Amino acid sequence: MLNLPTYDDVIAAAARIEGHAHKTPVLTSRTVNEEFDAQVFFKCENYQRMGAFKFRGAFNALSKFSAAQRNAGVVTFSSGNHAQAIALSAKLLGIPATIVMPHDAPAAKVAATKGYGGNVIIYDRYKEDREQIGRSLAERHGLTLIPPYDHPDVLSGQGTAAKELFEEVGALDALFVPLGGGGLLSGTALSVRALSRDCQLFGVEPEAGNDGQQSLRGGSIIHIDTPKTIADGAQTQHLGSYTFPIILRDVNDVLTVSDAELVDCMAFMASRMKTLVEPTGCLGFAAARQRKAQFKGKRIGVLISGGNVDLARFASLVAA
Amino acid sequence: MLNLPTYDDVIAAAARIEGHAHKTPVLTSRTVNEEFDAQVFFKCENYQRMGAFKFRGAFNALSKFSAAQRNAGVVTFSSGNHAQAIALSAKLLGIPATIVMPHDAPAAKVAATKGYGGNVIIYDRYKEDREQIGRSLAERHGLTLIPPYDHPDVLSGQGTAAKELFEEVGALDALFVPLGGGGLLSGTALSVRALSRDCQLFGVEPEAGNDGQQSLRGGSIIHIDTPKTIADGAQTQHLGSYTFPIILRDVNDVLTVSDAELVDCMAFMASRMKTLVEPTGCLGFAAARQRKAQFKGKRIGVLISGGNVDLARFASLVAA
Repeated sequence: MLNLPTYDDVIAAAARIEGHAHKTPVLTSRTVNEEFDAQVFFKCENYQRMGAFKFRGAFNALSKFSAAQRNAGVVTFSSGNHAQAIALSAKLLGIPATIVMPHDAPAAKVAATKGYGGNVIIYDRYKEDREQIGRSLAERHGLTLIPPYDHPDVLSGQGTAAKELFEEVGALDALFVPLGGGGLLSGTALSVRALSRDCQLFGVEPEAGNDGQQSLRGGSIIHIDTPKTIADGAQTQHLGSYTFPIILRDVNDVLTVSDAELVDCMAFMASRMKTLVEPTGCLGFAAARQRKAQFKGKRIGVLISGGNVDLARFASLVAA
Repeated sequence: MLNLPTYDDVIAAAARIEGHAHKTPVLTSRTVNEEFDAQVFFKCENYQRMGAFKFRGAFNALSKFSAAQRNAGVVTFSSGNHAQAIALSAKLLGIPATIVMPHDAPAAKVAATKGYGGNVIIYDRYKEDREQIGRSLAERHGLTLIPPYDHPDVLSGQGTAAKELFEEVGALDALFVPLGGGGLLSGTALSVRALSRDCQLFGVEPEAGNDGQQSLRGGSIIHIDTPKTIADGAQTQHLGSYTFPIILRDVNDVLTVSDAELVDCMAFMASRMKTLVEPTGCLGFAAARQRKAQFKGKRIGVLISGGNVDLARFASLVAA
């Protein structure tokens, strides 16, 4: 039986990241409130350092390293925001970082990770197993492996975003949160159950990859093939051993949205709210829009997870 | 001799718009601060209601209408943000609004203006004179004409953005402000000279339309043909009878930037700061970047005037 983190770990994480992570703004929109006939609060982690909530969990995990761990360094595998989050956190804390990235990772993400001083190791996504490479590097060089979501310190750190949201706006009737591997959703769940007990908590996945929905409804972790979706941050194949039990215990349901709904939300947020959100970042907003009839007159939270989308890609998605 | 508005009029305007206009956020960026080796504060009027600072001046002007003026209604001419600002302010105050727009105004702007309840009258830009149409409508129907910039209540309202900026961040060493007809720059000047006396104040124009620079440096209002630039909010042909004397008295210099510099700034602000800014809105940032070597270690303000750019146009500009 795993020792699951609790809200006390989120409190401890908040103290560790204070002064390093941004306290991100909560945006509101009269247009959205009128459309919903409700009050909607957007917690905007696209304004977080390196552009996504991932900095919270990465910095929290690395802050707990012993002197020996710091000297040896950290290793992780990620093609996305977690890679940059580890690279930036490691740079700030003076820890050597090794990031295992697939050979077809976007050049911009590889460059950003290297820009933060990360030592990037490229592997062949079709022939090699990234977790295996990460683990063998860890063993061979005494590095500490910090995976993208299935780690108590990572998920506790991610929970600090919802903690800030509740401390700023008070209790909510519903909260919609993007779901990939479950780091953000499980950390958020710890804060929800401590700060806004009766809030309905929803994880939101792309339609094409509803393993979380199947897992929650079926009661055990379901594995799927890498889903085809524009929500690249939610192209995970399964929930984790730490994230799943918390989600099973604390999350009301997992909803799904289509890529077309994500594009609509990206365009709306850019044109009306002047804020740039990546496809994965719109999962919560898209699901809230689907369900708005259910929440008339209520107080609704939407967690915007990140804004790291290449401008050319953004343009091709929203200006079609 | 005109009776020029003073900072007291800005204070009065701030009281009138309170609770109606947004107090917009001041954004900062570690990346920008590192690039500049200075502290840079972005006052983000792209988050203002209807997406630009213009709401401040329009709402202030309409708030001062007598009962008779309110009943008769307001008229203005504008193809841009002032049209939407008047239409929205009029709607909020229950005043009928007539907006004279050119036949080739973007459909989205016409639709937005009508969406706020404005009565749109289309004229032929090449055959008719919009000011003449506005004036004759005003006379014939007893409407009050509120022009886009050359009006004491309009410019006093625009000055409230800089007032908020100084109240939030304190005195500055330099402030960079977009310049079209001078409503924003002259109103800002009133706040600067009251709240941060020694701050160097710069107006910024597109290279193609430097009438303001010529006017300030030469000491009299210069008229030019409509300039060709992507900064559509600064395609004005001359400063105004109210805005020019204040600019001449209080502004240190007028600088110019190229369209290419504006595009660089739009792309930077979208990709790194996750905020959508229209081309005109980037004038101040582009000029500050040009001059950054001059302001090392200083405190620099950048006024972002608006974010109303069609997503397809934004895409074609930044993703080229």
